[in-house]
Amino acid sequence: MKTLYVELGARRYPIHIGADLLGRAELLSPNIRARQVMVVSNETVAPLYLDRCLSGLSRFQCESVILPDGEQYKRLEVLNQIFDALLKNRFDRQATVVALGGGVIGDMAGFAAACYQRGVPFIQLPTTLLAQVDSSVGGKTAVNHAMGKNMIGAFYQPQCVIADTQTLNTLDDRQLRAGIAEVLKYGLIGDSEFFQWLEAHGAELMARDSDALAYAIERSCQSKADVVAADEREGGVRALLNLGHTFGHAIEAGAGYGCYLHGEAVAVGMCMAAHLSARMGWLESQDESRIERMIDGLGLPVRPPAGLTAQRMLELMAVDKKVLQGRIRLVLLKGIGRAVISDDYDEAALHATLHHFCV
Amino acid sequence: MKTLYVELGARRYPIHIGADLLGRAELLSPNIRARQVMVVSNETVAPLYLDRCLSGLSRFQCESVILPDGEQYKRLEVLNQIFDALLKNRFDRQATVVALGGGVIGDMAGFAAACYQRGVPFIQLPTTLLAQVDSSVGGKTAVNHAMGKNMIGAFYQPQCVIADTQTLNTLDDRQLRAGIAEVLKYGLIGDSEFFQWLEAHGAELMARDSDALAYAIERSCQSKADVVAADEREGGVRALLNLGHTFGHAIEAGAGYGCYLHGEAVAVGMCMAAHLSARMGWLESQDESRIERMIDGLGLPVRPPAGLTAQRMLELMAVDKKVLQGRIRLVLLKGIGRAVISDDYDEAALHATLHHFCV
Repeated sequence: MKTLYVELGARRYPIHIGADLLGRAELLSPNIRARQVMVVSNETVAPLYLDRCLSGLSRFQCESVILPDGEQYKRLEVLNQIFDALLKNRFDRQATVVALGGGVIGDMAGFAAACYQRGVPFIQLPTTLLAQVDSSVGGKTAVNHAMGKNMIGAFYQPQCVIADTQTLNTLDDRQLRAGIAEVLKYGLIGDSEFFQWLEAHGAELMARDSDALAYAIERSCQSKADVVAADEREGGVRALLNLGHTFGHAIEAGAGYGCYLHGEAVAVGMCMAAHLSARMGWLESQDESRIERMIDGLGLPVRPPAGLTAQRMLELMAVDKKVLQGRIRLVLLKGIGRAVISDDYDEAALHATLHHFCV
Repeated sequence: MKTLYVELGARRYPIHIGADLLGRAELLSPNIRARQVMVVSNETVAPLYLDRCLSGLSRFQCESVILPDGEQYKRLEVLNQIFDALLKNRFDRQATVVALGGGVIGDMAGFAAACYQRGVPFIQLPTTLLAQVDSSVGGKTAVNHAMGKNMIGAFYQPQCVIADTQTLNTLDDRQLRAGIAEVLKYGLIGDSEFFQWLEAHGAELMARDSDALAYAIERSCQSKADVVAADEREGGVRALLNLGHTFGHAIEAGAGYGCYLHGEAVAVGMCMAAHLSARMGWLESQDESRIERMIDGLGLPVRPPAGLTAQRMLELMAVDKKVLQGRIRLVLLKGIGRAVISDDYDEAALHATLHHFCV
């Protein structure tokens, strides 16, 4: 097991990464304040891991709530099921909420914890690669709105993150690939050496080589933890973690939540960001090709789904959280490992990029 | 105009109290970060004051969303109407939300501001006595759940509070009375001199004497501001502000939200807290009578609505936010002006109190 920390002063918390951590009471217990624990999971993950998780919580009064699986359920109405369960069981404001699942479960359980009685502690037990390398770390919680992804939420940090790498063995290939897209993101943003490593070892990740996975998870979590410690509430540098996300969120909302997985939409979004960057001469065109080749080689999509028009993409991008005073801000590339946030891009090049990708 | 401050370090904010403040641009403008302003109001208040409010905001891009009026609409589903309006108008994360109305509007607009894009600035323009003396100050925001009042929310401070006392002229007597109940609370909790003043001047408040109202609002806001500055997140002393509220919230939920106004339910709750305190010998019985006489004299209810049983009250009280490890904690009185929070009361005396009041 390896332990990293997100350095947030009094709210500093650990990320434990390793095999077979789910049932280990000594990792969970120190992070639970009182006796009540509500495990939030979904219909896919609960049959596989709920019992193991509960075995590490036998000292506590545990209840669970099982939500339907999929991004299309990440909404206010479904969030209410968590509140119903907490209230039905008379959970008080010292109760702990535990998120057992992927990014959707982590985002919803975290947001429910942020709001229940104006805030109760919570713990992240991410079971997908995407959640282990990205969404479980950093305290962004949210639900979607029909008009925009993650529009309703809170910055709310967990007590700890426990990433049991063994859970990746039951992840299907599509979910694994979607997680690798977010791993790749860290390389593109600020770690060209890691990008090269991924070019050499991507196939090992897809083959679930446990050493390769552990290395990729640790390096990704360290990147994320560093950025969050520097800029918890996204006043500046944290926005870089949104590489591919402005395009990606528009794809998710436009195609219908759940059609493309989040990581798949981000993969397309990174191709689009690279293309726009290259079109403006910010990125060498061989680097654009290298990025698209790598994403394509992993079996990830490199184009938005058919039927999503450039016009619709632009409308959806206009409600992105990085928009300020009517201007869409984008994370773009000035090289592999050199991301920048900018509203100083060429509008015509953005339109050309959208028309190039949306056919 | 009088200005008080809630001293919260970098999040310090002013409370302006006075006549004819609603349209005064110089009070609003310094608290608005960018150009977009969403005014949240309701069907009762908007026809009276929305135009005046907007006249002070002519420099900005203003939109408004008008919600139905009443505690029964303070729910997640209705909250969504605010998010719809923000997204439809492409409001970004520098947009400001303005709450124009009573406690329900303030709570909902504040919670929407806390969640929209994970937090945008907001301003309180309270138009009821209850909102001016209590709910607009201190950053408690929430919506109700069928099983418990204010169960889903956030601690989220406004940029400023502007209490235009002129708006009280259009308040109906019932709403005015409900506000006086919260004023009375400050006297009972920690200010026996103010309680005596209220005994002498209660009729002037009901007659809307503007000097008396201004004095009561200022003294109440100062009490609230002091408590919030000392204990923003209710780790200790802030819980005292819940005198009458554990009983009161159970009455609101049990009778159906909107049946008793919040202030009316709190009035009954304060009678119950006084009765229980007297029954245990903590409070002199003549002080109990004095409290009930005063509440009754103002025309406020002193009993829960018929049909609400002691058993149902107890069930509802068991989901109160002050419950810890299964034990209901209550704010009780050891004298007029001497409130305490306690889980060390006599359970049998609580049951007797509930049966005394719920017939």
